[in-house]
Amino acid sequence: MVDNAYLLPMYEQVKEMLLEKIKSGEIPSGSKLPSERELSQQYNISRMTARSALTALVNEGWAFRQQGKGTFVANPKIERDLMKLMGFSQMLKEKGLVPTNTVINSRVIEADKFIAKKLNLSIGENVYQIVRLRCGNNVPIALEYSYLPVKLFPNLLNYNFHNESLYRLIEEHYNIKMKFAKQYVSIAKADESEAGILEIAPGEPILILESITYDSNDRPVEATRSLTRGDRCVFYTELWKNSET
Amino acid sequence: MVDNAYLLPMYEQVKEMLLEKIKSGEIPSGSKLPSERELSQQYNISRMTARSALTALVNEGWAFRQQGKGTFVANPKIERDLMKLMGFSQMLKEKGLVPTNTVINSRVIEADKFIAKKLNLSIGENVYQIVRLRCGNNVPIALEYSYLPVKLFPNLLNYNFHNESLYRLIEEHYNIKMKFAKQYVSIAKADESEAGILEIAPGEPILILESITYDSNDRPVEATRSLTRGDRCVFYTELWKNSET
Repeated sequence: MVDNAYLLPMYEQVKEMLLEKIKSGEIPSGSKLPSERELSQQYNISRMTARSALTALVNEGWAFRQQGKGTFVANPKIERDLMKLMGFSQMLKEKGLVPTNTVINSRVIEADKFIAKKLNLSIGENVYQIVRLRCGNNVPIALEYSYLPVKLFPNLLNYNFHNESLYRLIEEHYNIKMKFAKQYVSIAKADESEAGILEIAPGEPILILESITYDSNDRPVEATRSLTRGDRCVFYTELWKNSET
Repeated sequence: MVDNAYLLPMYEQVKEMLLEKIKSGEIPSGSKLPSERELSQQYNISRMTARSALTALVNEGWAFRQQGKGTFVANPKIERDLMKLMGFSQMLKEKGLVPTNTVINSRVIEADKFIAKKLNLSIGENVYQIVRLRCGNNVPIALEYSYLPVKLFPNLLNYNFHNESLYRLIEEHYNIKMKFAKQYVSIAKADESEAGILEIAPGEPILILESITYDSNDRPVEATRSLTRGDRCVFYTELWKNSET
């Protein structure tokens, strides 16, 4: 049995056509997509089908709706490479974006049992908690909580994380070489305070990247929890058959 | 300045306490969590704070609400290892779950430009489209679309994907050795038909794993798009500093 690929539902065909125009830059980011009425006339489809096509683009993060104004092309998603042990700032620079960090909070706290376990510390040992909003071209991308053992990084809070990469600081000023990281990707819905900081609506889905980074002595040196806007980011990874061993 | 970790917001402390009981199995999956009233009495907190704690657990996928009945502990999330080139069935078995595949559709279609590009084919070349619902212990976990070039896998549709692993089939019956895969993780909201199949509410966030798998001759042999329930799965990956080269 040979079916034709064009047996795809109508709305998906229209979605794919629009998506191609978005990907090629023919409809650039920020610009308005055709309205339901325009699509239904242009492709001779029902308003309902036109709406479904636009909704699919919104659901997949390619477009966003503005109440009473229409549907607009979203900024292209940023590909975050989970294969490269680099900080967020460096990653954004490689993508041609200007990274900025807003330090929301940086302080010393006592490790609770969850952080202690991740960093191989005793409960109550001092850790730095650094909360940063990571932006690319001034658009919020991720709200990142970093935890580092105080004993490994004396006077860390004297540095200015607005301008400096935490990764580079660790490697250059503390002479600690990062070796590998364990990474977990999951999703959650943004609560009100997270949504406010990330400039999205409460309840919008966010990608959660949790990682523990180890140094060349296999010591955990940093634990992070990064709440990433799902409409702005894609995570990329590769696997190799012989990497299992 | 040394703050105490217990300066965490009240609701988060209560959430963490409940989470610990969930993780330890003290409150097993499927069982009812304390109500807002019970929590507010037990911990001497407001109903509002109790509600926030329960909502945080729901938002992170640890619990779910049943209208008029209360909040219940969700099944533990399945860790899908993005470092291992294995099929879903094998992965579920390793986690101690019984995998079942429901083949929703399997047919030959003509490659559209997106599939053709992924599989390095010409537009219009024949590809298999295999749509499967992957379940673990009969709970829907992922809706998976697989695309494979017909010319590489003659008579593929004669096999029974309900019982057989597609990966094993490829390796054993067609003698094609998988070498590596490119993988992209993103999120979207489930549309009505996806939500129906995955047994979640429309608009719920889903993890999208898109992959292209290559054989030992660096030929793309399979492209997949896997819509994974975010309340059921976490993706895991590791990175190594020297793997960049």
